[in-house]
Amino acid sequence: MNSKAILKFGNVYIGAAVATVGKTESEGPIGDYFDAIDTDEYFGKKDFEEAEAEMVRRNLNLLLGKAGKSFADTDLLIGGDLLNQCTATAFAAAESGVPYLGLYGACSTFIESVICGSVFIGSGRCDSAICFASSHFCSAERQYRFPLEYGSLRTPTSQRTVTGTGALLLGNQGSIRIESGMIGRIINKGVTDANNMGAAMACAAVDTIKRYFAATGKTQSDFDLIVTGDLGFEGNDIAKDMFALEGIDIGNNFGDCGMMIYDRERQDVHSGGSGCGCIASVFSGYLYKLMCENRLKNVLAVATGALLNTNSALRGHSIPAVAHAVHFSRG
Amino acid sequence: MNSKAILKFGNVYIGAAVATVGKTESEGPIGDYFDAIDTDEYFGKKDFEEAEAEMVRRNLNLLLGKAGKSFADTDLLIGGDLLNQCTATAFAAAESGVPYLGLYGACSTFIESVICGSVFIGSGRCDSAICFASSHFCSAERQYRFPLEYGSLRTPTSQRTVTGTGALLLGNQGSIRIESGMIGRIINKGVTDANNMGAAMACAAVDTIKRYFAATGKTQSDFDLIVTGDLGFEGNDIAKDMFALEGIDIGNNFGDCGMMIYDRERQDVHSGGSGCGCIASVFSGYLYKLMCENRLKNVLAVATGALLNTNSALRGHSIPAVAHAVHFSRG
Repeated sequence: MNSKAILKFGNVYIGAAVATVGKTESEGPIGDYFDAIDTDEYFGKKDFEEAEAEMVRRNLNLLLGKAGKSFADTDLLIGGDLLNQCTATAFAAAESGVPYLGLYGACSTFIESVICGSVFIGSGRCDSAICFASSHFCSAERQYRFPLEYGSLRTPTSQRTVTGTGALLLGNQGSIRIESGMIGRIINKGVTDANNMGAAMACAAVDTIKRYFAATGKTQSDFDLIVTGDLGFEGNDIAKDMFALEGIDIGNNFGDCGMMIYDRERQDVHSGGSGCGCIASVFSGYLYKLMCENRLKNVLAVATGALLNTNSALRGHSIPAVAHAVHFSRG
Repeated sequence: MNSKAILKFGNVYIGAAVATVGKTESEGPIGDYFDAIDTDEYFGKKDFEEAEAEMVRRNLNLLLGKAGKSFADTDLLIGGDLLNQCTATAFAAAESGVPYLGLYGACSTFIESVICGSVFIGSGRCDSAICFASSHFCSAERQYRFPLEYGSLRTPTSQRTVTGTGALLLGNQGSIRIESGMIGRIINKGVTDANNMGAAMACAAVDTIKRYFAATGKTQSDFDLIVTGDLGFEGNDIAKDMFALEGIDIGNNFGDCGMMIYDRERQDVHSGGSGCGCIASVFSGYLYKLMCENRLKNVLAVATGALLNTNSALRGHSIPAVAHAVHFSRG
C-alpha cells in the first residue's frame, strides 16, 4: 500500500451544493429534496445533448445564486459527463469565462472532480472550485444503446440513466468538510455484458473500499453511510456478496444512490439509477442536506464508473471499471 | 485577473519522457527523435481502438523501462485520448494497478495532465505521476468523420490526426522543471467548420497566452520557444494575425507541433498534424530531448483542444475551444 494512497486535503469545505433533475427523478422517493426540476426532457432546447448542457448551465447558475457568488468569483470549473467528448459540460461551461478542466471518469466523474478540486484548493493553488457532473436519460440511451423511438426492451439487470446534475462549490468555508479521498485503480474482471454494468463496477467499488479501510484503519462503523454511485440493486447485491466472501463486515449502512433515487416498485427502472448525474444529484441534492441537518455526520461516497464505449462493448471487450472515494464529514 | 491564475508547482521535474508514433509520423522531419515506431497501423491488434490502446500500453512500459521503474513505483496515472469515452487510455491503464484519473480536454489533454500531475506532486499528495495522451489517425477518422474505406476527400484547412502518444514521468527529480502553468478558459468565437479546427483553437491559444503574459509579466523574449499543440498552418496564421491586431509581439519563436511533425510539401497532411497525440509525442519525443541537450532552455507549451463532437458539429453548433499552458525550464 502506497503511503500516499490516502489523500488529505487540508481545509476544504462545501460552500454550497445544488442539484437539478428531470421528471422521473422528481417523482422518486427523494424527489422533494432536489433544488430544481424540469418536466420537459428537452429543457427548452431542440436536441437531447443541448438539453443536458442547458440543465448543467442552469444548475451552475443556481449554485452561484445560492452562494451569492458569480463566475467572476470562481477560480476553477472541474466536471464531466457521459456524452462523446463530454460536450454537455463543455457547452455549459463555455460562457462562464472560468478556467476549466474537463474530466472523463464515466460515472465516477463527480467524485473525481471533488478529489481534483480539493487538491487544488487544499494546496492553495486556488480559492474556490465548482465540481460537477451530469447525465441525461435520453442522450445516454441514444448514444450507448438505441434511440428511444425504437422502443427497445431492456434487460432486468439494466439501469436507468439519471437525468440529473449536481454541483458543489468548494472553498475554505462551510459546514461539511472534504476529509480525505482515495483515487481508484482500474479493475477488469471480465464482465462483458453492457447491460449489467453494476456487476463490472461492483468489483471496482469493493477494491477501493477495501484499500480505503486498509490505508486508514477505518471500518464501516466509522461511517453513518457508505454510499456507492450507481451499482444499482444488482451491483449492490454483488458487492455485498464480495465483502462477505472476504470476511469484511460492510454492515447495514451500505447504500447506493442508484437505489435511492427511484422507487423500483412504482417506477419502471429495472435495476435502479445510473449515470454521472446519479451520485452527483443524490449527493448534492439529498445527502448534503441530510449532513447539514446533522442527520448524517460521516459519509464515504464511492463513485463507480464503467469505462466502456459502444465500440468496445460491441466487439466483446470486457468492461474496465474504476471507483473513487471521498470522506465527507460534518465537524 | 485572478491572483491564483498562475499555478506554481514547487519542485516538480520530468524524470523521463517517451513517445511512440506510427509510420507517417516516423517519416516526417523529426521522425528520428521518437523513441519507438510501428509501421503497422493496427499495432498488432484487430481494430483501431485496440491499436491505439496497445500503442499507449507499449509507450507506458517503455517509459517505465527507461526510468528503471515499474507501475508499483508509480502513484498516479493521469491521461486521456479522443475516442468516445476515452477507451484507449482506460484499456491501456487497466492492467497497471495504479490509481487512475481520466481526463477529457480534446487535444489540450496532454498539458492538462501535466498541470494536474504537477499539482498532485508539488503539493506532496503523491511522489510520482505519469502524464500522457494519445491519438490515432484511423480511429479518429472513423469516429469524427468517415471510415477510411470511403476514401472521402479532405478540405485544405483540415488536419491529419497524429498516430502517436507521449508520456512524462513526473517526480521530484530530473533536469527539466515544470515551472508554472495556466488553466485555459473556454472560448467560443462562433467557428462552425469542423474541418477548420485550427481557427477555433487559435482563439483559445491567443487568450491563454495573453493571460499568461499579463499574469507573469513575461513576454515572448523570455522563451526560446512558445509552441502550440495543433493549430496547424491555418490556425498558426490566424493566431499570428490575432496577436498582431492586438499589438502583441509574438516574435519568431512561435511554433506549432502540428507544423513540426509532418513535411507539408512531401506528405499529404493538408494543414498539418492534430490530435491529443500531436503535442504529446512532439514534446515527449522531440522538444524534451532538445531541452536535455540544452538547445532549448525555456519552453511555453500551449495545448489547444476543440471541444466538439460529431453530433454538435452536424447540428451546426459552434466549436468551443480551450488551451492550457505549461512553462518547462532547464534550470
